[in-house]
Amino acid sequence: MSEPTRSSAEAADAADPLAHVRARFAIPAGTTYLDGNSLGALPAHVPARLKTVIEGEWGTDLVTSWNANGWWELPVRVGDRIGALVGAAPGQVLCGDSTSVQLFQVLTALARLRPDRHTLITDGAGFPTDQYLADSVARLLGLTVVRVSPSDVESVLDDDVALVAFSAVDYRTGERWDAPAITEAVHAAGAVLTWDLAHAAGCMPFGLDEIGADAAVGCSYKYLNGGPGAPAWLYVAQRHQDALDLPLTGWQGHAEPFALEPSYRPAGGIERARVGTPPLLSMTALDAALDVFDDLDMNVVRAKSEALTQLVLDYAAAYLPGVTSATPADPRRRGSQVSLRLEHAYEVTQALIARGVIGDFRAPDLLRLGFAPLYLRHVEVWDALEILRDVLATESWRDPSFARGNAAVT
Amino acid sequence: MSEPTRSSAEAADAADPLAHVRARFAIPAGTTYLDGNSLGALPAHVPARLKTVIEGEWGTDLVTSWNANGWWELPVRVGDRIGALVGAAPGQVLCGDSTSVQLFQVLTALARLRPDRHTLITDGAGFPTDQYLADSVARLLGLTVVRVSPSDVESVLDDDVALVAFSAVDYRTGERWDAPAITEAVHAAGAVLTWDLAHAAGCMPFGLDEIGADAAVGCSYKYLNGGPGAPAWLYVAQRHQDALDLPLTGWQGHAEPFALEPSYRPAGGIERARVGTPPLLSMTALDAALDVFDDLDMNVVRAKSEALTQLVLDYAAAYLPGVTSATPADPRRRGSQVSLRLEHAYEVTQALIARGVIGDFRAPDLLRLGFAPLYLRHVEVWDALEILRDVLATESWRDPSFARGNAAVT
Repeated sequence: MSEPTRSSAEAADAADPLAHVRARFAIPAGTTYLDGNSLGALPAHVPARLKTVIEGEWGTDLVTSWNANGWWELPVRVGDRIGALVGAAPGQVLCGDSTSVQLFQVLTALARLRPDRHTLITDGAGFPTDQYLADSVARLLGLTVVRVSPSDVESVLDDDVALVAFSAVDYRTGERWDAPAITEAVHAAGAVLTWDLAHAAGCMPFGLDEIGADAAVGCSYKYLNGGPGAPAWLYVAQRHQDALDLPLTGWQGHAEPFALEPSYRPAGGIERARVGTPPLLSMTALDAALDVFDDLDMNVVRAKSEALTQLVLDYAAAYLPGVTSATPADPRRRGSQVSLRLEHAYEVTQALIARGVIGDFRAPDLLRLGFAPLYLRHVEVWDALEILRDVLATESWRDPSFARGNAAVT
Repeated sequence: MSEPTRSSAEAADAADPLAHVRARFAIPAGTTYLDGNSLGALPAHVPARLKTVIEGEWGTDLVTSWNANGWWELPVRVGDRIGALVGAAPGQVLCGDSTSVQLFQVLTALARLRPDRHTLITDGAGFPTDQYLADSVARLLGLTVVRVSPSDVESVLDDDVALVAFSAVDYRTGERWDAPAITEAVHAAGAVLTWDLAHAAGCMPFGLDEIGADAAVGCSYKYLNGGPGAPAWLYVAQRHQDALDLPLTGWQGHAEPFALEPSYRPAGGIERARVGTPPLLSMTALDAALDVFDDLDMNVVRAKSEALTQLVLDYAAAYLPGVTSATPADPRRRGSQVSLRLEHAYEVTQALIARGVIGDFRAPDLLRLGFAPLYLRHVEVWDALEILRDVLATESWRDPSFARGNAAVT
């Protein structure tokens, strides 16, 4: 560990191959935005694109836009663009609905691939929605849920395990699991597995095809910058698609949606994962937002992410006595965030926000800082850490206006 | 029946209490838009509202908008506004997801209210998604699906019927069912019932509370003009909410979503129907779109709808030999559309579109014309019918460019 300095942060910015990408975003002046892992910043060209879609396509072309302006193909086209960022060849990712809904789809369909097995394994520390949906699907299908940390999955794998559902990166601690090894272990036990890439897509390369993943879901409003509540996505490996038996049998997933048949026949390929009519305006914002990735190498994105999180860990060790990290020191084992464990984390988070440093609080004691590599500078991270140091040293968080209320969480 | 004339249409426009409402919409010049039952027209003020939300709330306030700009409350606030248009007191309607997803929620939860019964009744001529989801839910819960026309529901009601799922208006023929009588019959048999108001909300009053409805779902992009794929909504009568056992147990429906508990505990009231993070941009467009209804009386809206559909039926009887109506002549038995049965309906629909009259085709032989009372004039409907008469008389639909392809359908 080298003791960091502001000039080393400046030097890192000068050498940053992604420095020019920041200009693609509308970052408000006076804000250091360390919450791109909750809601990504606005790509600057998105408003103009939405204006065209609303006034030109909806307002003028009206219903003919489904064909004339490619609305019908949007979930597939956006899906393929996301797929390219997480290592999925075209035809395996579909965009639509929320992550919760996509989890329900994938968990049910994967369990149906292993009808003679009756155990569903998930992470007892995973994001709540992942756990709630696992319980709901288990109840509907008569499965038993076993909770275990991804690092201990081998201890519970046996021939009754139908499926496993883990996040690639822990939303709270930022710990990144060994996806290739876990996938391999699950397959060796004859089970299938889905990855939740909410905290991975857009900030690191991920080789869904390469590791032989069965399925995945992901969120589009964090590092993909698709806007608030941007439609989520699911990935199903091509080899499973023909047997995919999904519970949300919406009309758009029918083999011939325009034939208006009374019985469901699923479409071929990933299009069977279409459900109802998708939220076109939100999906168009996401489609436009993805443009910022068009010329980027995800390995370069990841390298900057590692440098930013390393800067935080080094700074904390050197200048923030009493503050520990819930995020692993080994860069291979962390995502694009650092969660600092400290007393009065809620109040400290509020005090930082009041000074323009936007992070978030995760109960009970975490200040969670996300590092979106596309638009953050090393030096602004340095300056934010100096503000944190000052807030802690002066105990300015004791101001009553920073007392606990509700903070939005995702 | 009185034989209609252009001057009687002009007189109706002159006396139209909704004439001023048309100016609230951006209707493209040269278009007579008779497809507002598929995708409603753009309310003129929506683009400015979206610009504010995208640039000001997402772009500038970023994640703090969940609290600062009321994003968290949006599904409830929009739900209540829709509720006001369909006769639901506040706290019973929630906005989010697609109609297909909401149907899955409601069908599953209603079936769970009657665990000792094992039959689900639906309309074998209903919109495909309604039938597909009924089959999917029945399979998951071990129910048997019985298909019957809403008008014949009493013939299949017995003490094994758990739930009934009907549309208030047939999407194809425009036939409107007797919702109060059907609801009463279903309740008399000890079952519960959900109404699909896709083709009712926004074009007629509907008394969900008054008729004692158990549940309902609806679409927001037809007569509510919420934009392409605008989030749908569900209604659950207050008396059922505490027992409501929904399958999509997303984190936003938790009693304490910010406590990040590992087990699901549903929120009180309609908020338990929240699932994942909703598509905020699409939902904001819908919220803004609903403004056009703020000072309108749905009885006045309905009266104009009846006048417009009557004009079409009278015109067809007088001037369109060989064309019959699939829509009932009794105004009390029709929605806000007229479906004309004619040979070569597909080609005729295309020929009309080429002349600026936008309707749609429904297999096998229907020209479906929707009449959004908020922005249509009687005289433009008259002129559109004159074009139809000309297309049929001259057989201009035989132009090969009008041959069958795929048309978007909802």
